[in-house]
Amino acid sequence: MVDALARALGPSAVTAIVNVGDDLEFLGLQVSPDLDTVVYTLAGLLDEERGWGVRDETTNALATAERLGGESWFMLGDRDIGLHLVRTSALRSGEPLSTVTARISAALGVETRLLPACDERVRTMVATPAGELDFQSWFVGRRHTDPVVGVRFEGAGAASPAPGVLQALAEADRVLIAPSNPFVSIDPILAVPGIRAAVAERRMDAVAVSPIVGGRALRGPLAEMLGGLGHEPSALGVARLYADLVSTFVLDPADAVLVPTIEALGLRAVVVPTVMVDPLEREEIGRGVVEALT
Amino acid sequence: MVDALARALGPSAVTAIVNVGDDLEFLGLQVSPDLDTVVYTLAGLLDEERGWGVRDETTNALATAERLGGESWFMLGDRDIGLHLVRTSALRSGEPLSTVTARISAALGVETRLLPACDERVRTMVATPAGELDFQSWFVGRRHTDPVVGVRFEGAGAASPAPGVLQALAEADRVLIAPSNPFVSIDPILAVPGIRAAVAERRMDAVAVSPIVGGRALRGPLAEMLGGLGHEPSALGVARLYADLVSTFVLDPADAVLVPTIEALGLRAVVVPTVMVDPLEREEIGRGVVEALT
Repeated sequence: MVDALARALGPSAVTAIVNVGDDLEFLGLQVSPDLDTVVYTLAGLLDEERGWGVRDETTNALATAERLGGESWFMLGDRDIGLHLVRTSALRSGEPLSTVTARISAALGVETRLLPACDERVRTMVATPAGELDFQSWFVGRRHTDPVVGVRFEGAGAASPAPGVLQALAEADRVLIAPSNPFVSIDPILAVPGIRAAVAERRMDAVAVSPIVGGRALRGPLAEMLGGLGHEPSALGVARLYADLVSTFVLDPADAVLVPTIEALGLRAVVVPTVMVDPLEREEIGRGVVEALT
Repeated sequence: MVDALARALGPSAVTAIVNVGDDLEFLGLQVSPDLDTVVYTLAGLLDEERGWGVRDETTNALATAERLGGESWFMLGDRDIGLHLVRTSALRSGEPLSTVTARISAALGVETRLLPACDERVRTMVATPAGELDFQSWFVGRRHTDPVVGVRFEGAGAASPAPGVLQALAEADRVLIAPSNPFVSIDPILAVPGIRAAVAERRMDAVAVSPIVGGRALRGPLAEMLGGLGHEPSALGVARLYADLVSTFVLDPADAVLVPTIEALGLRAVVVPTVMVDPLEREEIGRGVVEALT
């Protein structure tokens, strides 16, 4: 959605505040999968088939690490590792994540501003019947097969919004909550003290885009998670979660039937295509969303 | 020479004590170029054309790091980085270098025992007219163009021989000083307290192989360094350096003329081919050296 908006509005008109709760330390590398997916997408480097990592990638480092008995359950390509090495060295030398991110973005020609939610370490921890797991161990390591009975954000209480985050939220024409998983992608951002309040402050200009279309998640196990955590597994269930933060809810034509129920929550419901099957559709989807909100 | 002897005697009949003064931290990775060259050679993975690194290698990680403004002056391939990631993680978690090295060797099917001279950090520092440089900054970073006016081994005084080193020196049938640079490859091993004395103790069974043939170094800038440090730039100059440590000096037929002068130092001079142009010659060279010493 960041790319869609950046294409529709121009790359420097958008600031993306990105989740760091999915970050992990793997083979001694500081990996920030959400930041990296956004930066690779905006830089035109993303492997669009897989939806993560760099295109034309090789995996010789990880294959060697595996042969030598090192960790190998998380997939890192060689080009990707080049980025992680630069970030890890910078963080170890004391550079904040937000500064490293800005440097990496600039080096890749990305004009959209990317801000991690915070510079501190926050880890999304998922409670399952098999015990608590960090996000990536649950999502990648165990292929999100364990039902989720709770989520918490380790370290969030002691974190502060990264430089620029509160200002961006205060000054933006619109605040848009992307169609991501509310529990494990959006909540870890909102859990950083000050961010939820800053979004709520902008409620009249704030918009959420439904990550559920026709009862199915655009990506990942969100529908199951909504059900498991006691919510309705539909765009309506998501709209309820955001009703105190946004005044507008964008949903796909497939869910037009939900408009009255969503408006009954005190939200304006806007119906516009949001499903991007092909990256080439992104600009069109972005324009549609922008026009619908103007 | 380790590979030549391992081929001639059988891989498990040889223990290699390897220099760690060339080690460096690069992009946050703990790199041990000498250990790695030995392990890659013995595992049959070495890029024989270059003489370092792994064959069929890609360099996508380093190219990415360079694009992102990271360090890129030291060449690391992707497969090589996989090894460095495993080693770096293990060292950070407190595992000694000797143990990591044994694990990596075993994983690659290497039967020859490889021992770092010590588990502690030792750094070969080279004094030049442009100031003091760590070994790799001088050798790779500045392509060893600065004349060497002195060498010291930072950290060596506080180091101890790695487990197995003194026992291997005491129990081996023969102790062989490989045809490497005495100042920056052999001396940093001997500088670890206890090792020089342990070699001297075996002087009657100890042998050095000349790294200089026909006045030229088998590899690297040794001839210039001998001259710069006030020694004769020949096999004789090297023989003088080792006269108190070994009783036998092996030199190439190209230097047979030096035999009487070397024997005048109280050394037995053994003339046998030592120059390995092709890896296929290694076993033959190894056998030749072994037979000459029997």
